[in-house]
Amino acid sequence: MKTLHVALAERSYPIYIGPDLLSDHTLLKKHIKHKEVCIVTNTTVAPLYLDKVLTALADDFHCETVVLPDGEEYKTLSVLNDVFDTLLQHRFSRQVTLIALGGGVIGDMSGFAAACYQRGVPFIQIPTTLLSQVDSSVGGKTAVNHALGKNMIGAFYQPQCVLADTSTLLTLPDRQLSSGLAEVIKYGLINDAAFFHWLEENMVALRRCDDAVIAEAIQRSCQDKASIVAEDEHERGKRALLNLGHTFGHAIETGVGYGVYLHGEAVAVGMVMAADLSQRMGWITPADVDRIKRLLLAAGLPVTAPAGMTAERFLELMSVDKKVQNGVIRLVLLKDIGQAVISDDYPQDELVQTLTLFGT
Amino acid sequence: MKTLHVALAERSYPIYIGPDLLSDHTLLKKHIKHKEVCIVTNTTVAPLYLDKVLTALADDFHCETVVLPDGEEYKTLSVLNDVFDTLLQHRFSRQVTLIALGGGVIGDMSGFAAACYQRGVPFIQIPTTLLSQVDSSVGGKTAVNHALGKNMIGAFYQPQCVLADTSTLLTLPDRQLSSGLAEVIKYGLINDAAFFHWLEENMVALRRCDDAVIAEAIQRSCQDKASIVAEDEHERGKRALLNLGHTFGHAIETGVGYGVYLHGEAVAVGMVMAADLSQRMGWITPADVDRIKRLLLAAGLPVTAPAGMTAERFLELMSVDKKVQNGVIRLVLLKDIGQAVISDDYPQDELVQTLTLFGT
Repeated sequence: MKTLHVALAERSYPIYIGPDLLSDHTLLKKHIKHKEVCIVTNTTVAPLYLDKVLTALADDFHCETVVLPDGEEYKTLSVLNDVFDTLLQHRFSRQVTLIALGGGVIGDMSGFAAACYQRGVPFIQIPTTLLSQVDSSVGGKTAVNHALGKNMIGAFYQPQCVLADTSTLLTLPDRQLSSGLAEVIKYGLINDAAFFHWLEENMVALRRCDDAVIAEAIQRSCQDKASIVAEDEHERGKRALLNLGHTFGHAIETGVGYGVYLHGEAVAVGMVMAADLSQRMGWITPADVDRIKRLLLAAGLPVTAPAGMTAERFLELMSVDKKVQNGVIRLVLLKDIGQAVISDDYPQDELVQTLTLFGT
Repeated sequence: MKTLHVALAERSYPIYIGPDLLSDHTLLKKHIKHKEVCIVTNTTVAPLYLDKVLTALADDFHCETVVLPDGEEYKTLSVLNDVFDTLLQHRFSRQVTLIALGGGVIGDMSGFAAACYQRGVPFIQIPTTLLSQVDSSVGGKTAVNHALGKNMIGAFYQPQCVLADTSTLLTLPDRQLSSGLAEVIKYGLINDAAFFHWLEENMVALRRCDDAVIAEAIQRSCQDKASIVAEDEHERGKRALLNLGHTFGHAIETGVGYGVYLHGEAVAVGMVMAADLSQRMGWITPADVDRIKRLLLAAGLPVTAPAGMTAERFLELMSVDKKVQNGVIRLVLLKDIGQAVISDDYPQDELVQTLTLFGT
């Protein structure tokens, strides 16, 4: 088992990474301070792992469970209210610990529920997808979606600990694994060229979920992310680098409906679009763009936008993104592989050319 | 104009108190950092004061307004979503400043909306009721209600500044003014015996809203509250003193439906109940209880519970209160007028006797 400590202003918390962590009961229990526990999971993950968690806790805690429908389309304020219903029906106090057992949607919703319930209760993340293990584990971003935009309602809220059990990845569909690899590749692109190269060498083993290789990728991703978040917890500056591919990607997710492209798939396309625009500006070479595309394809990811995303639709959706400041869309672009920058002074017509190339 | 600086860990913000502050355009403008403004108000306050605020800002800012229905029954997650709808329809970015123009419900909802919108945007409080001027101005508590409990979903979130324009109290119905006086009296009871005595001397002038007297009462209340909040921003200890009368009071509000008793009226009854229990335990004298009742009656407040609140109903509702820890209802009781304490080791049968005396 690898342990990574995420250091933040107020406090630090551990991320545990390794196979079969859910069978280690003491690991989970030592991070629960009081007697009340509410596990939030979904209809896909519950049959696979809920019993393991309940077995670990049932003797020592008052445990209740909320099983939400599975899917990004349920990441809403109204479904969030179902979590509050359960918490209040069982009269859980401010001492309840919420446990998020599932992927990014479950993590985001449980974390936001924990941030808001009685103005804040502790929570623990047990991410069961690669995407959530590398993304939601670090940074404390929690949120629900709004019909007019993704992650528009949320909070910055840190967990007590994160248990990334790599054995849970063995039940993950290939497409979901690839979606997670998109975020892993993102960390290489942003500030870790050596990691990008390592990923090129190890992609086959990663897609097989070899224990040591996948744990290494998760740890490196979390470390890269933590180093950025530690400098800018509330996204006033540098943290925006983590949005590489996301402004284009969110537009795709909102534009064609959540679920047509998985989050990582949309981000993969978004990263290629960011690379294309960076190349138009003369920052990276066409060979760099090809190298990025090749790695994404090797990871099983798409590199073109889905049908229905015209250049106009992209622009319209991107203009409500959280990264907009004073009406200008701020983008994360690439000065090099391993060197992302935040920019709002790209030529608008170059952006339109990228959108037109990728638009359908 | 009086200015009180509230000092908190991260930052400090000013509370401005005085007559006709809404006509001072520079005061408001200097606390808005960017160009986007969304004013949240209600159907009662909008016709009275919205134009004043719009006049102050219209030339320099992109201003939009959300007018919510008036009443505690609209302090819900679903009405909160209307605020998010407006913010997103107008494509407001993370740089938008929310302005809460109204009473406690508007302040709580706008503050929570600001805490959650894009994970946090700045907000300004313009409380237009005495209750919100003395209560919501300090402490950063924001929330919405849930069908199963009051203020169950919320956040701790601090404003950029508070403008307590005492002229707005001239349009406040008497019953609302009295409701605010309940919280004012509460500060005297908790830790300021001299203020309690001052209130006994000045109650007639207060109910007339004499400028100097009302401003003095607001400033003293905010100061007393700020001194407690500064020691314990997230209510892990001493801050719970501010809940004097509130555990009983919330049970009344939830039990008979929000609106039958106003918040301050419910708290007034709750304070008498806390005093009664304190007297049963031999901490204060029957004469103290009478003195408290007399001041509340002089302020135009009820001292008995409304019909429908049986002892059993009280107990049931109090057991879901946020102050419950390990199944024990923590109460704020009185060692003396001006000396409140948090207690969970009162005899249960004494509590039942108080509930039976006040229950109907």
